[in-house]
Amino acid sequence: MGSTFGHCFRIHTYGESHGGGVGVVIDGCPARIPLEVTDIQRELDRRRPGQSSIVTPRQEADRCEILSGVFEGLTLGSPISLLVRNEDARPSSYEEMRDKYRPSHADYTYDAKYGIRAWHGGGRASARETIGRVAASAVAERVLSSLLQPAPQVVAWVASIRHLEASVDPVMVTREAVEGNIVRTGDPAMVQPMIDLIQSTRSEGDSVGGVVECVIRGCPPGLGEPVFDKLEAELAKAMLSLPATKGFEIGSGFAGTRLTGLEHNDAFYMEGDRVRTRTNRSGGIQGGISNGEDIVFRVAFKPTATVMREQATVSRDLEDTTLTGRGRHDACVLPRAVPMVEAMAPLVLCDHLLRQRAQNGIGSLPVTGRES
Amino acid sequence: MGSTFGHCFRIHTYGESHGGGVGVVIDGCPARIPLEVTDIQRELDRRRPGQSSIVTPRQEADRCEILSGVFEGLTLGSPISLLVRNEDARPSSYEEMRDKYRPSHADYTYDAKYGIRAWHGGGRASARETIGRVAASAVAERVLSSLLQPAPQVVAWVASIRHLEASVDPVMVTREAVEGNIVRTGDPAMVQPMIDLIQSTRSEGDSVGGVVECVIRGCPPGLGEPVFDKLEAELAKAMLSLPATKGFEIGSGFAGTRLTGLEHNDAFYMEGDRVRTRTNRSGGIQGGISNGEDIVFRVAFKPTATVMREQATVSRDLEDTTLTGRGRHDACVLPRAVPMVEAMAPLVLCDHLLRQRAQNGIGSLPVTGRES
Amino acid sequence: MGSTFGHCFRIHTYGESHGGGVGVVIDGCPARIPLEVTDIQRELDRRRPGQSSIVTPRQEADRCEILSGVFEGLTLGSPISLLVRNEDARPSSYEEMRDKYRPSHADYTYDAKYGIRAWHGGGRASARETIGRVAASAVAERVLSSLLQPAPQVVAWVASIRHLEASVDPVMVTREAVEGNIVRTGDPAMVQPMIDLIQSTRSEGDSVGGVVECVIRGCPPGLGEPVFDKLEAELAKAMLSLPATKGFEIGSGFAGTRLTGLEHNDAFYMEGDRVRTRTNRSGGIQGGISNGEDIVFRVAFKPTATVMREQATVSRDLEDTTLTGRGRHDACVLPRAVPMVEAMAPLVLCDHLLRQRAQNGIGSLPVTGRES
Amino acid sequence: MGSTFGHCFRIHTYGESHGGGVGVVIDGCPARIPLEVTDIQRELDRRRPGQSSIVTPRQEADRCEILSGVFEGLTLGSPISLLVRNEDARPSSYEEMRDKYRPSHADYTYDAKYGIRAWHGGGRASARETIGRVAASAVAERVLSSLLQPAPQVVAWVASIRHLEASVDPVMVTREAVEGNIVRTGDPAMVQPMIDLIQSTRSEGDSVGGVVECVIRGCPPGLGEPVFDKLEAELAKAMLSLPATKGFEIGSGFAGTRLTGLEHNDAFYMEGDRVRTRTNRSGGIQGGISNGEDIVFRVAFKPTATVMREQATVSRDLEDTTLTGRGRHDACVLPRAVPMVEAMAPLVLCDHLLRQRAQNGIGSLPVTGRES
Repeated sequence: MGSTFGHCFRIHTYGESHGGGVGVVIDGCPARIPLEVTDIQRELDRRRPGQSSIVTPRQEADRCEILSGVFEGLTLGSPISLLVRNEDARPSSYEEMRDKYRPSHADYTYDAKYGIRAWHGGGRASARETIGRVAASAVAERVLSSLLQPAPQVVAWVASIRHLEASVDPVMVTREAVEGNIVRTGDPAMVQPMIDLIQSTRSEGDSVGGVVECVIRGCPPGLGEPVFDKLEAELAKAMLSLPATKGFEIGSGFAGTRLTGLEHNDAFYMEGDRVRTRTNRSGGIQGGISNGEDIVFRVAFKPTATVMREQATVSRDLEDTTLTGRGRHDACVLPRAVPMVEAMAPLVLCDHLLRQRAQNGIGSLPVTGRES
Repeated sequence: MGSTFGHCFRIHTYGESHGGGVGVVIDGCPARIPLEVTDIQRELDRRRPGQSSIVTPRQEADRCEILSGVFEGLTLGSPISLLVRNEDARPSSYEEMRDKYRPSHADYTYDAKYGIRAWHGGGRASARETIGRVAASAVAERVLSSLLQPAPQVVAWVASIRHLEASVDPVMVTREAVEGNIVRTGDPAMVQPMIDLIQSTRSEGDSVGGVVECVIRGCPPGLGEPVFDKLEAELAKAMLSLPATKGFEIGSGFAGTRLTGLEHNDAFYMEGDRVRTRTNRSGGIQGGISNGEDIVFRVAFKPTATVMREQATVSRDLEDTTLTGRGRHDACVLPRAVPMVEAMAPLVLCDHLLRQRAQNGIGSLPVTGRES
Repeated sequence: MGSTFGHCFRIHTYGESHGGGVGVVIDGCPARIPLEVTDIQRELDRRRPGQSSIVTPRQEADRCEILSGVFEGLTLGSPISLLVRNEDARPSSYEEMRDKYRPSHADYTYDAKYGIRAWHGGGRASARETIGRVAASAVAERVLSSLLQPAPQVVAWVASIRHLEASVDPVMVTREAVEGNIVRTGDPAMVQPMIDLIQSTRSEGDSVGGVVECVIRGCPPGLGEPVFDKLEAELAKAMLSLPATKGFEIGSGFAGTRLTGLEHNDAFYMEGDRVRTRTNRSGGIQGGISNGEDIVFRVAFKPTATVMREQATVSRDLEDTTLTGRGRHDACVLPRAVPMVEAMAPLVLCDHLLRQRAQNGIGSLPVTGRES
Repeated sequence: MGSTFGHCFRIHTYGESHGGGVGVVIDGCPARIPLEVTDIQRELDRRRPGQSSIVTPRQEADRCEILSGVFEGLTLGSPISLLVRNEDARPSSYEEMRDKYRPSHADYTYDAKYGIRAWHGGGRASARETIGRVAASAVAERVLSSLLQPAPQVVAWVASIRHLEASVDPVMVTREAVEGNIVRTGDPAMVQPMIDLIQSTRSEGDSVGGVVECVIRGCPPGLGEPVFDKLEAELAKAMLSLPATKGFEIGSGFAGTRLTGLEHNDAFYMEGDRVRTRTNRSGGIQGGISNGEDIVFRVAFKPTATVMREQATVSRDLEDTTLTGRGRHDACVLPRAVPMVEAMAPLVLCDHLLRQRAQNGIGSLPVTGRES
């Protein structure tokens, strides 16, 4: 029952890493939104492996097909079904996984929960599962840009890999700058050190993790639903539902606990007819509702669990044993995590925009004043 | 639409800080669970203000009434309605809030969203809203202890206040130890320093924040629903829906991004007939599903937004102005945040236990082997 | 999990016939809707027993209290909690029900499902449960009249009692005409025969059922969600969730199966700039979506299960036995069913209006052209 | 937002009659249920057109593909995605539908709601949409037969076509008997008269409707959720969500309103250790919860809206015009409606079985005593 996300803009994903394919059904999408398969393919291409020397060399074409819900280039208002076929299956490289639980993977827990597991591949726990999210998010972005002018901008970047920390200004960073380097960081000075770290780690059969930071610029005030569906709570859930994530913080986050209230509070002031805050420790959300400032959050990704070294583990028959990682895996998921983080944000925003429209209408939402 | 939490064990909260009262309706609670109003009152008493010298002196009796769903000491399986009347209203102390937006509060965003706001008190954004959660959680705990033997244990404690960090072992800490001091930390050495910090901060009209850490011991393997309703994603949402929260991390969290995969991975081994991990950087959850180890997570609470000093802000008429905090507020919410964090955990667990029972039954869940 | 109705305008009801009270929490209600407790009390007064010589003489004041969600006469956008205390409990008259299952009541099935039952009264299966629906519907009506001008009109009436059939024109019947007689039929010629039938039946210790018909005039085209949440499907569910109902039909209904397609089809024509149909066998809904014509449906209510005569039954100990009805019951629920049917219709409409606003906006909905 | 059905066993359908295909995603299906594509294909073959001389001669192979959720013949517990490609598109025969609204079809209302319509075919309002339901129901049936022994039996049949009424005993009728004739009625004496009526009607370019009756035998007591999700309310919604339906009644239905309470009540008695009722006017459900007796209901289907004769209508440009039906359509949908009704029943039952398991467990459900 856990493959649905959203209340008004609602997506249902499916698919294992091996099998017929992965995909998503989107329900509640507004009608008459322009949508081409290329809008979706573009985002899938950013997500897929094999794009550079520092990610897994697996080649997956990930060709998207629109099965329903679109007619003559416009959404119909009916469910939009998007399918990506699986290819490049190499079950032989997974043979050992049939009987042994990979440490810090989901093999054991899937067995504990379901009593069965699609062992030849990561099954539903594979990063391949995120294809459905990314595809759906491309649709969400089209909805946002149809209903909000200017449309909110979502930009994510690699803020750190292990101890290497990028210096990036969330207010200014552009998606072009991030996409301009294969690490997908926003700090030019950190590109080569991060590449070097990933490559040296991989050569040792080891892996590294890091932090992705994300900014949403131009979100109008008024989105988010107290009390359980606060905007930051929904973002936290969205991000922590991504594979390999271990933490989420918004605005001042954990570091903000070191400040006093006087240091931390964001003073309001008027900028023309728009309510602004001098600082943005709130991270663009107050009381669970967007306040029109930039929404800024950070997501922690653990080091890739698959390492090319022998590790102690247990077998499905509950015997102690060892396992050595094989196959083609990312030594660092961070570069590929960027488009995944960027995908979840519009899904949250679009759902909450429609929820706000349902309850209160969106005609009277305060404008953001952001220049497009 | 945001006042509902849970899918199978489902709660609906309501109530502003001023008005008739606050409460909760619980739907989907199993029938024939022993439940007395004292079970609920006990938890409410831990949450309410006025308990010690370091929290707000507001006196709220917070008497809970069971309106429905319980008959002769047993749950009926029908909705359980719990009501706590509001008292001690002093709208005069809020008069200035009618026209001015308190910095880093939800005044402005509620107005932006709804075009109206219950200005004489925090309305729905008041910490008083959490009464419904705490009351519902007491019921969830009864369900958990009926369906699981031994029942999971949830213990939270103040891990840090500003720069003061407690040293606490999640494996050993007890609720008794935490409740034994008014700060609700688990480290005896930190009790007095933390009290001193809160009192000195308050005397300056300022406020402080900190981190609450929480452990769930004895959760059986198999709870959590891939892919969006992963157990950590649901916990993150639950915690980030609490007032004043800015971050969530599980297991190794943000610090874990500094480790390599070899350092980070939790090796499996057999302990009798139970699958265990040597380390617990996963924090008790792998692939979104509990693995039977302790679930350990941390929640960041910002410093209280209400400070007794003049701050710049804007009025409802969109004019720059200033505002000085008044009234009886916590200079540090951390001691009272502990029972709130402890309340959300059973709500997540109970819902996921019933979800697992719906889909796969719970008769075959691996046991945890924990001694009660 | 079954006490919630609606997706965007969502209500959660609770309460047994005996116990603290019955009530409802409404989530998703638009903000700034004018709402007074008298708006709700008026509808509750129509529903409650003791109003005339042909219904149960039980006296229940049914005083409604607004616990939350309303501030200075306007909705806040937060959950609206409405409570009606229980009074007039006479558990002694129910003593026999503790051990014996009343035929065609829910006593046995509640025990079968939950293993427990609030035997001193009908529990959750009591008609008293409908108080929450009626109260919530009064709010839904305020929302409809705020968002749609002119507001849709809902009128229901007793179309038949046993073999006595009223002759009523759905296009013309008014709520005033229906409320002008204690049977709540729209046919003056049938008032006295129906009263006589109810009274003679009651004097025999027996009971009768009948049919309530309902028209919704002024529903704009475009409401209803294919494919499962078709407007007629939602109305059917809403009506069949009322106690004692056995059937639902819309437009031509079961009788329409006797016509051929040529006889049955509703020809379209233009009336000014409005699309109309010459006939209305569709009952105002086509393909699950309202077409702007009157929505007309009928609901079958079985004869009251409680009769003042000895009947064969079984005990809770699974022994054959007999039971004789006692207490104060309606010999015919039809007069009191009218406001219940009228309550469910706005709940469906309001939810679907907000759902349509979420997805497609409601600014462009075709007007109905109905004069107010 | 209306393409989802169910709470714990949840299906999401998609697809227009023309376009890539139609399908369904099933979430919440228990793991380790044996499932082969042939289980699904068998049910789809019963639904598809072109099977006999009295239904539309359209040939649609309707080959089903399992895209996910099944591994080595067992369900994984993850979403099951089922896809049927569209074929045999003849948009030319629909050209006139681009600009003209077919009477009593959904063309106008889709335009009113969405402002766009997939005019080359019935779009989402096509009976082809039911493929997803039928495919999902085949899975639901496998779940039911895994969790309940003996499994409930669902049998539907054509009870009437226009004025021709079949005489069928719900207690005894078998699916084999119904499938043994192309009308799918259970009364051998009515087979030829019904065939003759359909053929003569078709030769006149007209159409007929009728009633499908359905029995569920062997449903255990205890399924159904008071108060809104009563089992009959859910069945009513399920059936009224099928295309062309106009009415639903359960047990005594509308005819039962002619009886008195004494005549109508179902006396309880003990049959061995099982609680039974002497009569079954309740139709197997009391207070919204199954009582272990046969669940019997009836569904009204209007005469097919597409007739081969000229009818008055309006154009999309809002001009009066005429339209003459063309193409290959069923002159009577009843034979094909039988498997559709049979498909919806297990979807309701399976969802409510899992809901009951979530809340109360199903180990203690009273047995039905029915011999398999």
